[in-house]
Amino acid sequence: MINPEDNKSTPFIPRTIDYEPPHDLSHFLIGRPLATADAPHQTIGKAVGLAVFASDALSSNAYATQEILAILAIAGMRGFAYVFPISIAIVLLLIIVSISYVQIIHTYPDGGGAYIVARDNIGEMSALIAASSLLMDYILTVSVSISSGVAQIVSAFPDVFEYRVYIAIVAVIFVTLINLRGVKESGAAIAIPSFMFIIIMFVTLAVGMIKYLTGSLGAVIDPPELIHATGALTVVTPFLILHAFSSGTAALTGIEAISNGITAFKEPRSKNAGITLIWMAVILSSLFLGISFLSGKIFAVPSEFETVISQMARTIFGGQGFFYIAVILFTTIILILAANTAFAGFPRLSALMAKDGFLPRQLTYRGSRLVYSRGIVSLAVIASLLIIFFQASVTRLIPLYAIGVFLSFTLSQFGMALRWWKCGHIKPGAELVERSSTLHFDPHWKLKMIANGFGALCTAIVMLVFAVTKFEDGAYIVLILIPVLVAILWLIHRHYSGLAKNLSLENYGEPPPYMGRHRVIVPVSNLHQGTLAALRYARMLSDDVTAVHVSIDPDETKRVEKKWEAWGKATRLVILASPYRLFLEPLLGYIEEIIAARQPNEMITIVVPQFIPSKQIFNALHMQTAEMLRKELLSKPGVVVTDVPYQVL
Amino acid sequence: MINPEDNKSTPFIPRTIDYEPPHDLSHFLIGRPLATADAPHQTIGKAVGLAVFASDALSSNAYATQEILAILAIAGMRGFAYVFPISIAIVLLLIIVSISYVQIIHTYPDGGGAYIVARDNIGEMSALIAASSLLMDYILTVSVSISSGVAQIVSAFPDVFEYRVYIAIVAVIFVTLINLRGVKESGAAIAIPSFMFIIIMFVTLAVGMIKYLTGSLGAVIDPPELIHATGALTVVTPFLILHAFSSGTAALTGIEAISNGITAFKEPRSKNAGITLIWMAVILSSLFLGISFLSGKIFAVPSEFETVISQMARTIFGGQGFFYIAVILFTTIILILAANTAFAGFPRLSALMAKDGFLPRQLTYRGSRLVYSRGIVSLAVIASLLIIFFQASVTRLIPLYAIGVFLSFTLSQFGMALRWWKCGHIKPGAELVERSSTLHFDPHWKLKMIANGFGALCTAIVMLVFAVTKFEDGAYIVLILIPVLVAILWLIHRHYSGLAKNLSLENYGEPPPYMGRHRVIVPVSNLHQGTLAALRYARMLSDDVTAVHVSIDPDETKRVEKKWEAWGKATRLVILASPYRLFLEPLLGYIEEIIAARQPNEMITIVVPQFIPSKQIFNALHMQTAEMLRKELLSKPGVVVTDVPYQVL
Repeated sequence: MINPEDNKSTPFIPRTIDYEPPHDLSHFLIGRPLATADAPHQTIGKAVGLAVFASDALSSNAYATQEILAILAIAGMRGFAYVFPISIAIVLLLIIVSISYVQIIHTYPDGGGAYIVARDNIGEMSALIAASSLLMDYILTVSVSISSGVAQIVSAFPDVFEYRVYIAIVAVIFVTLINLRGVKESGAAIAIPSFMFIIIMFVTLAVGMIKYLTGSLGAVIDPPELIHATGALTVVTPFLILHAFSSGTAALTGIEAISNGITAFKEPRSKNAGITLIWMAVILSSLFLGISFLSGKIFAVPSEFETVISQMARTIFGGQGFFYIAVILFTTIILILAANTAFAGFPRLSALMAKDGFLPRQLTYRGSRLVYSRGIVSLAVIASLLIIFFQASVTRLIPLYAIGVFLSFTLSQFGMALRWWKCGHIKPGAELVERSSTLHFDPHWKLKMIANGFGALCTAIVMLVFAVTKFEDGAYIVLILIPVLVAILWLIHRHYSGLAKNLSLENYGEPPPYMGRHRVIVPVSNLHQGTLAALRYARMLSDDVTAVHVSIDPDETKRVEKKWEAWGKATRLVILASPYRLFLEPLLGYIEEIIAARQPNEMITIVVPQFIPSKQIFNALHMQTAEMLRKELLSKPGVVVTDVPYQVL
Repeated sequence: MINPEDNKSTPFIPRTIDYEPPHDLSHFLIGRPLATADAPHQTIGKAVGLAVFASDALSSNAYATQEILAILAIAGMRGFAYVFPISIAIVLLLIIVSISYVQIIHTYPDGGGAYIVARDNIGEMSALIAASSLLMDYILTVSVSISSGVAQIVSAFPDVFEYRVYIAIVAVIFVTLINLRGVKESGAAIAIPSFMFIIIMFVTLAVGMIKYLTGSLGAVIDPPELIHATGALTVVTPFLILHAFSSGTAALTGIEAISNGITAFKEPRSKNAGITLIWMAVILSSLFLGISFLSGKIFAVPSEFETVISQMARTIFGGQGFFYIAVILFTTIILILAANTAFAGFPRLSALMAKDGFLPRQLTYRGSRLVYSRGIVSLAVIASLLIIFFQASVTRLIPLYAIGVFLSFTLSQFGMALRWWKCGHIKPGAELVERSSTLHFDPHWKLKMIANGFGALCTAIVMLVFAVTKFEDGAYIVLILIPVLVAILWLIHRHYSGLAKNLSLENYGEPPPYMGRHRVIVPVSNLHQGTLAALRYARMLSDDVTAVHVSIDPDETKRVEKKWEAWGKATRLVILASPYRLFLEPLLGYIEEIIAARQPNEMITIVVPQFIPSKQIFNALHMQTAEMLRKELLSKPGVVVTDVPYQVL
C-alpha cells in the first residue's frame, strides 16, 4: 500500500515503489510475464539457435536444385549436365558469404548484420537501403513460406483450396503466438521438426549415395512431365548458366538472420552464434550438393507436377513407402517453419533501427515475455495483409523475393571490404575506435578484402540478374518500394533527431520562473452541475477566471445571465453575441485576442466541462467542444485546454 | 479589438462582444451568412410555398393513374371501367386528409404534423412511430424521386446507364446545395419548373376535354404492349378494387410536408400554409381526376414501354410535337424536384424532434443561411447511401415507400379524432390548455370526429393493403425498421432526459467550496524541455506537485535522477519500478492509490507533457500517454487529465 503522504517528508530523495502485474488472459496465450532481470535466462544454445534461425535457409533445399534445373531445361536435357558444377559455384558463394557473416558476428556482437555493417563502414544511406531490403524480405519470407506450405496442403487436399487464405492467416497467428511466448519456447517448438528434416534428408542422401556407389540407384521411374519452356534454346549460353546460378542462390536466403539475432544466444554469444552459422552453412551445403549430385544421377526433371525432392525420394527408397512420406511431410513442415526465421530476425532488426531513430521508438519495447512483441505483431499484420492481397499465391509473391536479400548481402560484404581496407592502413599496434567496434591492423587485410569484394561482386551480379529476369513479374515493385521505404525511414529519423535537438536541456539556460499570470477561461453554454464543477476547478487553478458565453439564442442567454447571478459566485462573465449562430468561431476569436494581449510568462488555460455518458456511443449526442478547441489551439504555445469530466448516469 | 482588462473592473456585469464571421468559400457555394435577426425575411409566400412543398404531391400525377390501371389489368380490359370511380374515391380520401391537415396547421402553428398531433393527443409512442415513418419516407422520397428522374434520363440516353448512380448522386448534391442556400432561394429555383408542369398539364387536360366534348379525341394510336399480368383474373374482385385504390393513393404522398414546414411561411403563417395546402389539394385533385377520366376515354393501357401520360399527350396533341415534348420534359423535371419536398420537410421535422430530445441536439442548429443545415446534409448522405446500395433502382426502392406515409396519416387523423372528442367534452366557454395548443368546445365535434375517424380508417386500410401486397418485395424491411428507429429515438430521449435530471441545479443545494486540496501528478519518462514546461505548468496549478517516473530501464532511471537534481527544483519525484517493462499499469496503480486515499473535496490533476509535431502524422511516432490516461481515468470523479502541449519543429 502506497501512502502518498510518505513522500511529503522527503521531497528531494526519489522514492521507489515496485509494481507487479495482475494475472490476465495473455498469460494463458503467451505465458506469465518475465522480469527484465530474467533476460540472461531467456537465451538459447547453439542447437536451438540452429532451429530458430536456420529453418529459412534449410527450407531452400526443398526447391533450390529444382530452380536450377527449371532454368537449364530451356536448353533441353543437355543443360542438366551443368547442374552439379553450378551447385558447386553456389556453395563457394555460400562459403564466402558465410565467412563474411561469421566475421560480422564477431565484429558486431550486439547484432545488426548488413544494416550495422553498412551504417558503420559505408554510410547512412547504404544502411537504410540494406535495412529496407531486409525488412521487406523478412516480410516476404513469412508470406511466401506460409503460402507455399499452404500450397503443399492444398495439393494434398484440393477441397480446402477456397479456404487457403484463412488457413494461411491461422498459420501466421500460430507462428506469431509461439514467437510472442519468447525465443526459448519458440525454439523448443520448432527444434524437433527442424532436426527431423535434417536427419531425414541426410538419411535419404546417405542411402542414395550407397545405392549409387553400389550401382543399384537407377533412374526415376515414370518421370513427370517436363515444364513448358524445355528446349527453347539449342545451346547452353553463358547467360543461361548465369541465370541458373542466380536461381539456385535461393539457397542463400536466410543466412543473414543469425547476424541480426546474436543477442538471442547464450554467452559467449558471438562465439555461439558464429559456430551456429558455420553448422548451418555446412549442413546447408552438404544437403544442397548431395541433392544436386543425386538428382543428376537419377535423371530427375523439373516439373510442375512433382518436385525433384519427391522424385529423388521415391527413386532412392524404391517407391512411396514410410521414408518417402516422411521426406514429403517434413519438407512441408520446414517450408512453413521458414517463416519463423523472419519472426526471429525482423523484430530484432527493427528494434535496432528504432533505437537509432529510424523506426517508431515503440518497436524497442520488449513485451511481457522479453521479446520485441510490437515488432512481432507488426510483421504478422503486414505479412497477413500481403497474403490477403496476393490471395496466398506463391507464384505472384515469389518474384518480389530474394532481390532484397542479395542487395543486403552486397552492401554488407562491400562494407566489410571497406573495413579491411581501413584495417590495412592502421599502424600495427594502434587502434581505431569506431561507432560500434574497434579496428586493429590485420596482416591478412588484402586477402580478406579481396574475398569480401569478390563476394560483393557475385551477390551484386545475382541481384541484377534477379532484377532483370523477374522485372515484369513483380521485381519492379521492389525497385519502387525500396526508395519509398528509405525515404520513410529517413523522415522518421529527421523527426526524432529534430525533436531531440529541440528538447535538449544543453544550452537551455534558466527555464522561465514558476510564477506568472495564469488566466483561466471557461466556456459556458448553459449553467448546470457540470458547468459548476468546471467553474470550481477553474477557481482552484487561478483567481483570474473569466466565463464566456456564446449567445446564439437571446432567450437562452437571458436565462444564463439570470442563473449566473445565483450561481456564478461573482465570477466575471463575458457574452459573445453571435448573430450568425456560430459557436466555435467567436470563442476562438476571443481567445486569440487574449493570447495576443498577454504578458510574458502568462499561461492561459481553457477549462471545458465535458459530460462522460455511461455509454460511449452517446458522445455522438454532444458537441465535442473540448476536442475541437484543443485541435484549434494545439499550435499556440502557453495555451492549455483542459476538460473537466463530469460523470452522468 | 477586445481588451481583456476591461472586464476586470466590472466583474459582476456581463459584457457583450459581437462576432462577425470572415468570408470564405462557403459564401460562393451557399451565399453570404444570414443573421438570426433576418429570419422573418427568410419566409416564403403562398406561390413559392406551393412550389417548395407541393412538388412531391404533384409529381405523383405522373404515375398515380398508371398504378391503378396496372392493378386493374389483372382482370383484363373490363377492369379499366373502374379507373374513374376509384379515382373519385381517392380524391374523397384526399379531401378528408387535406381538411384534416388544414385543421392541424391551424391548431399547431409551429409545425409538426403527425408527430406533434400524435404526441399531444395519443401518446409518446405513437408520436415516435409517426416520426420514424415520416423520417424514413422523406429519405425514401429523395432516393425514389431522384432515381426515377435519372431513370427517365436513362431511357432517353441509354448510353449513360452505367453512370446512373453517379448522376443520381450529383442530382442529390445539387438539390442539397440549393436547399442549403435557404428556403427562399430554393423556392425561387424550383418555382418556375413546378408552375410550368402545372400549366402544361392543365393545358393538356383542357385540350383533351374540348376534343372529347367535340367528339374529336379518338383513342391511342399504336398502343404499347400491355404489362404481363393482364387477364390473370376473370372477374373484378373487391380485393382487386381495394388493391387498385391503394396503389392509386400514391397521389397522397407529400401532403404532410406543409404541416411540418409552417414556420417557413410568411405571417400570418398558419393562414398562408393552410391556403397553400388547399390550393395544392385542388390542383392535385383536378389533375388526377382529369388524367384518370381522359385516360379511360382514349383507352390508355398500362405498359412498361410507354407511360399513360405519354399516351395521353400524344393522343390529345395528335403526335409527338412541341406540346408532347413539353409534357414529357416537365414531367421528368417534376419527378426530380419531388426530392425538394423531402429536403423541406425532413430537416424541420428532425429539428422539432431534436428540440424534444428524440434526435441529436445538433439537428436544431440553423446554419449560416438560417436552414437546418445539419438535417439537410444528413438527409442527403442517407439518401445517397440508399441510392448507392440499391444502385438507383426504382423497382427495388418503391416497395419500401408509402407505408410510412399512410401510417403517419392514420396516426395524425386518429389523433385529431381524439382531440375532437376531448373538445366535445369541454364545458362551452371553458378552455383546456395542452402542451402546444388550447382546446375549446366545438359544437361540430361529432361530425369532425367522425370525418377524421373515417379518414384514419381509410388510410389504415391502405397501409395494410400496402404492407400485405408489397411484403415480400421489401415492405418487410419497413416493418422491421420502424420499431428499430423508434427504439433508437427512445434511447436518445432517455439519455437526454437522464442527463438533464442529473445536471439540474434544482434541489442541488450548495456546491462544494472553491477551496480544497489540489494535488498534481506529472508523469516524467525523460527530462527535457517539454517535461520542464509541464512541470512549470503543474507548479502554477498547485504547490502540491509530485513527479512520477516509471522505471523500465535502470540506466535511464539513473540519468533521470541525475538530471532531476539539476532541473527538478526540489519537486518530489516518485520512482515506480516496473520489472515487467509495463508503463501505463504502474502509473495507473499509483494514481488509483492516491484517489483511494484522498480527502473530501480534493481534486487530482494529472499533467502530461505532449509533443505537438509540425505534421500530425508524426504523432504515430510517440506514445499517446495523455490520451491513454484520459481514457482510463474518465470515469473517476474529481480527476482531471491535462496535456500541456509543447510545440516542436
